[in-house]
Amino acid sequence: MISFSSDYTKGAHPQILKRLAETNIEQNPGYGTDDHCKAAAEKIKEVIGINDAQVFFLVGGTQTNQTIIDMLLKPYEGVVAASTGHIAAHEAGAVEFSGHKVLTLDYRGEETDTDKYGDNIGKISAKALTELLERFYGDDNHEHMVFPGAVYISHPTEYGTLYTKKELTDISKVCKQYQIPLFLDGARLGYGLMSRRTDVTIKDIAEAVDVFYIGGTKVGALFGEAVVFTGPEAVKHPTPIIKQHGALLAKGWLLGLQFETLFTDNLYFDISKNAIDMAELLKEGLLAKGYKLFLDSPTNQQFVIMDNAKLKELDGKVGYSFWEKYDDTHTVIRFATDWATTKEDVDTLMSIL
Amino acid sequence: MISFSSDYTKGAHPQILKRLAETNIEQNPGYGTDDHCKAAAEKIKEVIGINDAQVFFLVGGTQTNQTIIDMLLKPYEGVVAASTGHIAAHEAGAVEFSGHKVLTLDYRGEETDTDKYGDNIGKISAKALTELLERFYGDDNHEHMVFPGAVYISHPTEYGTLYTKKELTDISKVCKQYQIPLFLDGARLGYGLMSRRTDVTIKDIAEAVDVFYIGGTKVGALFGEAVVFTGPEAVKHPTPIIKQHGALLAKGWLLGLQFETLFTDNLYFDISKNAIDMAELLKEGLLAKGYKLFLDSPTNQQFVIMDNAKLKELDGKVGYSFWEKYDDTHTVIRFATDWATTKEDVDTLMSIL
Amino acid sequence: MISFSSDYTKGAHPQILKRLAETNIEQNPGYGTDDHCKAAAEKIKEVIGINDAQVFFLVGGTQTNQTIIDMLLKPYEGVVAASTGHIAAHEAGAVEFSGHKVLTLDYRGEETDTDKYGDNIGKISAKALTELLERFYGDDNHEHMVFPGAVYISHPTEYGTLYTKKELTDISKVCKQYQIPLFLDGARLGYGLMSRRTDVTIKDIAEAVDVFYIGGTKVGALFGEAVVFTGPEAVKHPTPIIKQHGALLAKGWLLGLQFETLFTDNLYFDISKNAIDMAELLKEGLLAKGYKLFLDSPTNQQFVIMDNAKLKELDGKVGYSFWEKYDDTHTVIRFATDWATTKEDVDTLMSIL
Amino acid sequence: MISFSSDYTKGAHPQILKRLAETNIEQNPGYGTDDHCKAAAEKIKEVIGINDAQVFFLVGGTQTNQTIIDMLLKPYEGVVAASTGHIAAHEAGAVEFSGHKVLTLDYRGEETDTDKYGDNIGKISAKALTELLERFYGDDNHEHMVFPGAVYISHPTEYGTLYTKKELTDISKVCKQYQIPLFLDGARLGYGLMSRRTDVTIKDIAEAVDVFYIGGTKVGALFGEAVVFTGPEAVKHPTPIIKQHGALLAKGWLLGLQFETLFTDNLYFDISKNAIDMAELLKEGLLAKGYKLFLDSPTNQQFVIMDNAKLKELDGKVGYSFWEKYDDTHTVIRFATDWATTKEDVDTLMSIL
Repeated sequence: MISFSSDYTKGAHPQILKRLAETNIEQNPGYGTDDHCKAAAEKIKEVIGINDAQVFFLVGGTQTNQTIIDMLLKPYEGVVAASTGHIAAHEAGAVEFSGHKVLTLDYRGEETDTDKYGDNIGKISAKALTELLERFYGDDNHEHMVFPGAVYISHPTEYGTLYTKKELTDISKVCKQYQIPLFLDGARLGYGLMSRRTDVTIKDIAEAVDVFYIGGTKVGALFGEAVVFTGPEAVKHPTPIIKQHGALLAKGWLLGLQFETLFTDNLYFDISKNAIDMAELLKEGLLAKGYKLFLDSPTNQQFVIMDNAKLKELDGKVGYSFWEKYDDTHTVIRFATDWATTKEDVDTLMSIL
Repeated sequence: MISFSSDYTKGAHPQILKRLAETNIEQNPGYGTDDHCKAAAEKIKEVIGINDAQVFFLVGGTQTNQTIIDMLLKPYEGVVAASTGHIAAHEAGAVEFSGHKVLTLDYRGEETDTDKYGDNIGKISAKALTELLERFYGDDNHEHMVFPGAVYISHPTEYGTLYTKKELTDISKVCKQYQIPLFLDGARLGYGLMSRRTDVTIKDIAEAVDVFYIGGTKVGALFGEAVVFTGPEAVKHPTPIIKQHGALLAKGWLLGLQFETLFTDNLYFDISKNAIDMAELLKEGLLAKGYKLFLDSPTNQQFVIMDNAKLKELDGKVGYSFWEKYDDTHTVIRFATDWATTKEDVDTLMSIL
Repeated sequence: MISFSSDYTKGAHPQILKRLAETNIEQNPGYGTDDHCKAAAEKIKEVIGINDAQVFFLVGGTQTNQTIIDMLLKPYEGVVAASTGHIAAHEAGAVEFSGHKVLTLDYRGEETDTDKYGDNIGKISAKALTELLERFYGDDNHEHMVFPGAVYISHPTEYGTLYTKKELTDISKVCKQYQIPLFLDGARLGYGLMSRRTDVTIKDIAEAVDVFYIGGTKVGALFGEAVVFTGPEAVKHPTPIIKQHGALLAKGWLLGLQFETLFTDNLYFDISKNAIDMAELLKEGLLAKGYKLFLDSPTNQQFVIMDNAKLKELDGKVGYSFWEKYDDTHTVIRFATDWATTKEDVDTLMSIL
Repeated sequence: MISFSSDYTKGAHPQILKRLAETNIEQNPGYGTDDHCKAAAEKIKEVIGINDAQVFFLVGGTQTNQTIIDMLLKPYEGVVAASTGHIAAHEAGAVEFSGHKVLTLDYRGEETDTDKYGDNIGKISAKALTELLERFYGDDNHEHMVFPGAVYISHPTEYGTLYTKKELTDISKVCKQYQIPLFLDGARLGYGLMSRRTDVTIKDIAEAVDVFYIGGTKVGALFGEAVVFTGPEAVKHPTPIIKQHGALLAKGWLLGLQFETLFTDNLYFDISKNAIDMAELLKEGLLAKGYKLFLDSPTNQQFVIMDNAKLKELDGKVGYSFWEKYDDTHTVIRFATDWATTKEDVDTLMSIL
């Protein structure tokens, strides 16, 4: 059965498997101190244009969010996020597990530029962030409240939407004004960068944020997220913090090797583009068949409003993700393309629909 | 300067000071194992009508909320509360500090009975709670979310409002159906029980909830909250948990002695009634003078919409609490009466206003 | 029944009760922002000779240890302590509850000056501390271990013993060399300062350490510990940290008032001296009657090796603390004097023994 | 340069790489809900002879120790371990990070059977465990101490030593008597099971303990540890707990697939035997050349006392692990063999030595 249920249902790009086989009996030191991690970090620093960035590699998304946020915050600080942010809703309380509150903002962003860049659902706005910060510091009693100590955004968001360069810059300005680090969750970063409707480059991100990560798990790797702190020596002792979170991979070079491969010959961007091309094809097909989109996503995740009767027909024929109830007779579902989706896959889906 | 800024600006009822002096060189064992704690627990069990309740004593509100919630929850569970709940907004992340998320519900309760019992602001509703629980368990992916492991309500709420008996019973039913313990924060319990517009007794509360506490700090004691678990041996080892939270008072009998005194000769209820009488007097005076209430509180906290110019005149003459901005020219402030407020105090305030 | 079981079996010095009564209806702002806390802080700063020290007040010992250690440490750091240190053995894991390891050292200190100052049991040594630090930083793999981020000592120790000025200075030097803050638990500080066999003054302590506290609970107060950070603005936001630990007393002026009283007219030192005088009297009596001391304590706690048969006779006649099994027929017990112990109390004990 | 520095310097057994390639575009559901995880769990349950065991898969050792211990303990409980246990010494405080204390026992086990089974270093004894438990429950004040809530042993230990069946059974009996779960860290389990000097089988372990894990990272897998709770439905909601620890691998089938492969055709045991054969060869060579062993390890880790001058000669020629300083002129180093070590590798080492 074909499945568009998510972008983490397949293994890795064949070039990664090849490199794994080639280096299998190479002996490497553990815990990310190897040459593959060094090489991958160098390649990433070149791509983002910051020579003294601090780069290291973790295994998965929730782990990365939890660890970075704990690196950024003092114990009495919380992290600001959209109420639909992954850390707020779908990480089983991993942030709270390490002692911090998620301070939520409305998830509908600002109303600007919607025509050009798609829906704003899933995004926070500089305006709402400013209001939260002004309210906090304006409150005489704010030392009894959780300090906003970092800001979390995801790009693409959990709804596949993207910040515009202006929106990103505006949020960044507010963060700088209040000296609060800005953290961008790039679990699907490639699919955002290669969108046909974005004006944000990876260098723009590196300039705007204090830390972000380049998702590998959902973009061609077996697993792995490349964490980039844009400031030099931003984290003094990353190793014990990562270890303490149970997040230090013994064979760390497996992470380095994968990102070394993804950032050789533009591979990361090329395979990300494939997912976008297939998503656009899929969207065209859906619209041609009269399906109604829940929102106009510019990335690899497409959200469709399905008649519940129709949905029943799909069971056992195609994999999709239940997203949310739309009304009594309709449901929002998600189709996700990925780095390995083919035109044939999309055609198969269309013939089923 | 006279102050109505809060209900914790004065020491303790004179009878408590007297008992402290009388027992000063009495030697007591530490950590709540003394006879005063036992006697106080017995008196409280009699008042609530549950012989095998588990009663112990803590020092303050945030500490009590944090400790009880940690006793109720498994590590991967969170506590449901109104977004205005004290634990959600004004305890500096004490719940998150012990690893748990606060799952917030809208703070405007249901629209029933508003005329009779005052505004519903600050309350959750059985309906909203049911929706949250149905949504959680209805979500295929709910094991990636924070489990709702307990429900927190405050009575009176942070806005001085009260649950009706029906509302309390309805919430209790939902909790029982989902086997989720219900916890009632009674930091100002006396002022709720003695309100002129309540049909809820302390026995009703003891029947409806799994745990609640009887506030002493704001109701006649120097400090202290009496925690009541209504089930027998509900908490297996309270002592190490309390100790681990830094909440085990060495001279625990100081807590026992104060509650022993408050629950002798109806003292707790009598002094609570005084605060209510004074609040009603204050409200009458405000309305007579044409002031507009922010909400019609049935307890000792009264919220008034003040003209900012008028407010400036009060500075240095009377203490009040800033509550929130109402509009560009008005502010919501709080006046709180307490167990020791006198008619003269209210008259003084009125003459200033 | 008379009891020498501990130094926290009685209420407070009468002068404190008097002040509580006098100020009972005085209205004070909450959370330690009142004038009594300010006045107490000023008096303490004068006594220690550091004008810009940061002083605040907490309720009890375990709470204070937990909160200060959490203020001092980064998340991946632990605190070094003697294996018999209160935080290592008798606080129900309060330090671990806030995420930190206690790194233990042997509890037998150095062998110097034993004749003059009593046994070294309960103390760490500069030498052992240096060895731990050299071993840690000498280990290539130390980023996989818990970083030693602070040093905890108690003075008097849990065995009533005292550091000499030289020992304290030596430990302080090691801490400064490695830039690790030194924290002194002074739950019984008065009894250490007034010992007949000490060359350590409160100013010596303030010079040697980064933070210490002056115990009130065991030295004349109902409750309360005065925390002194010797560096200016050492802790940037103490309030949210304290609040988050559930340790922020609503009626904070009760703490300020007690320390204001204790540090007026030398009261803290005078009543501490009483405990020492009574302990010395008690020790003389014990030795005269042929009892054998477990160690030669220079402070208010006296440890005696008792025949188990004899011990049985005492039950119901005098309160004592079981300390540890000595051998199959003997037990170590503790007698503690306090600020309120009288000559008559000691005489009564002697007549029973 | 050849390296014997550790058993996690190489990738995975070729059969695993082959299976990864074969299944690369197979689409699997995430988070361990796939068929490979199910198949691997079935194979493991068959090998250990417990049909209703609960089996799941995590990524690495520290993560697994942290997560299992947090599953076993109540918040106020700690875990008993040898002072040399990995969780006590080399996991950067990961156990404390989740709020629990490690209660350490002497690491020298009992003196029995040393001749037959090698040194006891790294092991705890049933006797020492019993003493700790008796002392804890015998102490009147034990509610102020950390409750011993689980027992951790490693097999092989960090020193390559093994428990005998009798020792394991004795520890198990004490745990059952006190109703404390026993947890065995099997990061190198294969090398223990295939030792020439063990009477412990995997079924013996499954009978003796409440939970253990079968190490993959060090025994033929790219990464992965198979966790086995021997009781049915021992952990009610493993997924949110694992997720909350940042330990839930998105592409969970990568773990299942590897263990499915390792437990097909006896592969796990065969490749473990290779490491043992090579270690014995290495040991013979060392002894023949007159080197002195630090202890007589029966598994794949060999500890040698090296002259510091000699050691300098090895630098750049062969990789080894620094273990500890032996005396001023000697150092203990470790050589580790693994599933892929060849006779040629050992010969090369011997020619260098």
